[in-house]
Amino acid sequence: MTFRATHLLGIEPLAPPEITALLDVADDYAEGARAGRRHWDALRDMTQINMFFENSTRTQASFELAGQRLGADVMNMGIASSSVKKGETLVDTALTLNAMRPDILVVRHPSSGAVDLLAQKVNCSVLNAGDGRHEHPTQALLDALTIRRAKGRLHRLSIAICGDIAHSRVARSNIMLLGKMENRVRLIAPPTLMPAGAADLGVELFDDMAAGLEGVDVVMMLRLQKERMDGGFIPSEREYFHRYGLDAQKLAFARPDAIVMHPGPMNRGVEIDGTLADDINRSVIQEQVEMGVAVRMAAMDLLARNLRAARAPKGVSA
Amino acid sequence: MTFRATHLLGIEPLAPPEITALLDVADDYAEGARAGRRHWDALRDMTQINMFFENSTRTQASFELAGQRLGADVMNMGIASSSVKKGETLVDTALTLNAMRPDILVVRHPSSGAVDLLAQKVNCSVLNAGDGRHEHPTQALLDALTIRRAKGRLHRLSIAICGDIAHSRVARSNIMLLGKMENRVRLIAPPTLMPAGAADLGVELFDDMAAGLEGVDVVMMLRLQKERMDGGFIPSEREYFHRYGLDAQKLAFARPDAIVMHPGPMNRGVEIDGTLADDINRSVIQEQVEMGVAVRMAAMDLLARNLRAARAPKGVSA
Amino acid sequence: MTFRATHLLGIEPLAPPEITALLDVADDYAEGARAGRRHWDALRDMTQINMFFENSTRTQASFELAGQRLGADVMNMGIASSSVKKGETLVDTALTLNAMRPDILVVRHPSSGAVDLLAQKVNCSVLNAGDGRHEHPTQALLDALTIRRAKGRLHRLSIAICGDIAHSRVARSNIMLLGKMENRVRLIAPPTLMPAGAADLGVELFDDMAAGLEGVDVVMMLRLQKERMDGGFIPSEREYFHRYGLDAQKLAFARPDAIVMHPGPMNRGVEIDGTLADDINRSVIQEQVEMGVAVRMAAMDLLARNLRAARAPKGVSA
Repeated sequence: MTFRATHLLGIEPLAPPEITALLDVADDYAEGARAGRRHWDALRDMTQINMFFENSTRTQASFELAGQRLGADVMNMGIASSSVKKGETLVDTALTLNAMRPDILVVRHPSSGAVDLLAQKVNCSVLNAGDGRHEHPTQALLDALTIRRAKGRLHRLSIAICGDIAHSRVARSNIMLLGKMENRVRLIAPPTLMPAGAADLGVELFDDMAAGLEGVDVVMMLRLQKERMDGGFIPSEREYFHRYGLDAQKLAFARPDAIVMHPGPMNRGVEIDGTLADDINRSVIQEQVEMGVAVRMAAMDLLARNLRAARAPKGVSA
Repeated sequence: MTFRATHLLGIEPLAPPEITALLDVADDYAEGARAGRRHWDALRDMTQINMFFENSTRTQASFELAGQRLGADVMNMGIASSSVKKGETLVDTALTLNAMRPDILVVRHPSSGAVDLLAQKVNCSVLNAGDGRHEHPTQALLDALTIRRAKGRLHRLSIAICGDIAHSRVARSNIMLLGKMENRVRLIAPPTLMPAGAADLGVELFDDMAAGLEGVDVVMMLRLQKERMDGGFIPSEREYFHRYGLDAQKLAFARPDAIVMHPGPMNRGVEIDGTLADDINRSVIQEQVEMGVAVRMAAMDLLARNLRAARAPKGVSA
Repeated sequence: MTFRATHLLGIEPLAPPEITALLDVADDYAEGARAGRRHWDALRDMTQINMFFENSTRTQASFELAGQRLGADVMNMGIASSSVKKGETLVDTALTLNAMRPDILVVRHPSSGAVDLLAQKVNCSVLNAGDGRHEHPTQALLDALTIRRAKGRLHRLSIAICGDIAHSRVARSNIMLLGKMENRVRLIAPPTLMPAGAADLGVELFDDMAAGLEGVDVVMMLRLQKERMDGGFIPSEREYFHRYGLDAQKLAFARPDAIVMHPGPMNRGVEIDGTLADDINRSVIQEQVEMGVAVRMAAMDLLARNLRAARAPKGVSA
């Protein structure tokens, strides 16, 4: 099989054929769900544990539904980050769960690198559901699947990622994935929200929406962390929306068939105009959520196949 | 089939034969559970999401058990109302969940009408598990089933609803259901807890327990929101219990075979005497909880049948 | 069958053959899980409710996984102790859940005796998952299974229990279990953390680690409740570790093949040295967690067998 990994820790280690293989499997799950199917057997007789050290209602729900639909026993562990003080304790928590013999651990953690560390300590498959500012691979994969379905391909597209790029693991994983698949990526952000070193990422940089959106196929908005506003980064929500919020006027600079994306949850009227977000001729935001379940099913399916193969007696072809 | 609805949003839109049909199905589930059965297939290969914007341990547990016993995949989403600020955000949350392709959404929300609004936005079946002061249809249905089982019929009974009627969606749904089934309903409350417009509800009004309970078949107590007390509405818990709390002395005004009901959780010694609540010759409070699971199973079963029929290819008889 | 109980409320009522029977069943489950099996049918078509009036992420997870692997429908009810004010309310909560017809109730409660009280009110099997300072039977059973697997027997061993014994239900249940199986138990604690009446427990008492650990087969450390420190009981974490924390130097007093145990979660550097805790040649701490799931599966399996037998029609041999 093309997809050989044991863990899904980020986009960085994936080769383009692995990404394509995963999206193909996800596409099949998405079509099955549209046809009314709710149950498969890929994780039957497996235990999936969702360890969320950060709250995320929608991402956890997406992973939980994905596991249930594949037949797994799914257990949620909400672990307030306040009760976890040190890396040492994270490892103790991981070792404890590992001793309960799960097959798949889905982990979200506020510290960059925490999920990689944890994967080294356990003997089950680990999926990164977001770690600090590092990676959020299933978000990038669901964005890729949504783009591929809307545009018919996932290469030689021009894609603008707009907004709070500096703090965004979503942007980071997307930049890597879209670059691997040979697309042209543009970043549009106010200087205070553009990450240091962005110039080395193989992307084009803009601080102006009109110039940045010129002729793009895809406009990918990011969630703005409101609590960072009014504190030196940017002047105000109103001012931010005026300069960087996506509305029909700014979208007019993009290609006439450009699609609009947002990872959710949206701040309507801050990073995106509400009417535009609801315009089913341009916005694929609901389809992103739908593809999220499909991509997570595909990722867990592929990891479980590799896990079963690794556990099979030697000499037996899996 | 008699029961044709896609959603269960309230008692108001239900016709008497629909109520009877639902209670008949619920009665069968209740008897099955008493015989030790714990599994049915009515929701097999379906996804049920419980969205509780208000905490309610017992109602959520009842819906969760009901779904599990019918074979659904059940996912709980506890959503603190503090994080949901505007109706717009409610709709975004609903659209997000809808994109995950659930079959049944169970929703509790602090705002009257929020569940109706949400039902217009999604393409799955919605059950109202309580919205503001508006409706709580499964509570009224479980009360009706409990009465029908205890009294052998659900018409031409005299039923007193007592206590904090003004703030109670339970009272509102019960008044409608019991009226539709041609019972005589009396409301007993201090003037400050009697809703404006109560005189137009086709019920008799009392502010005195002795007069109101005279000759009734059923005494339905309501939970008193303690936080509303000592603040102008009513003088004190002790005074309230003295005048409106149900005890053996007041119950003596009712028929000798009158049953005692309470939706729970009880404030013992405030709206009801603890000894009376535990008297299995008069109190059917535990049976109300038991019928709650059965009624929720019946409601989800009937909605799922209609959902499957609606999804079936045209021209095929379902 | 040897194991005849309907509830598992504590170690105290268990006879030695019942303990042995339960550990034998648990050993089989543990071996099955190691061989990759994740599903059994012992609780198929049964409802398990976990009622945790005290937070305990790992114990609840262990019971939840155990139930899922046995095929039960598992429902978690996290009930903040703040919302439960009186014993009366505990009973109301129990009666409410009982009316929903669960088969197994797993209960953790901050008050000693609360679980026994609750078991008298319901007609399903109750498992004590820890009540106040009273008992924590599944912890003692998992410790026993871990010892038996490491030492090849569970009798005539010398076992030291060290640390905050006064406040520990884990210690209490372990002292009873290990005594029933004819082991020699030593308690090592500073005088302020040694329970009154310890001299009557049929154990040897020590306030010095060197003397207490001399020649023991098993060193069982307890978790120190940090919030009790610096308040008169004991001088400081550093001082405590110096005198009572287990490190390689103190462990040298025990037998060369002595094993090190801890119920978790550990305070590394307070009651145990982190390096020693991770030393797989001495520490069996991860195996304790693994055996926890197996012991809980065995306990629920045996209780369910008795429950089914009690429910079977009379005259039919179960």
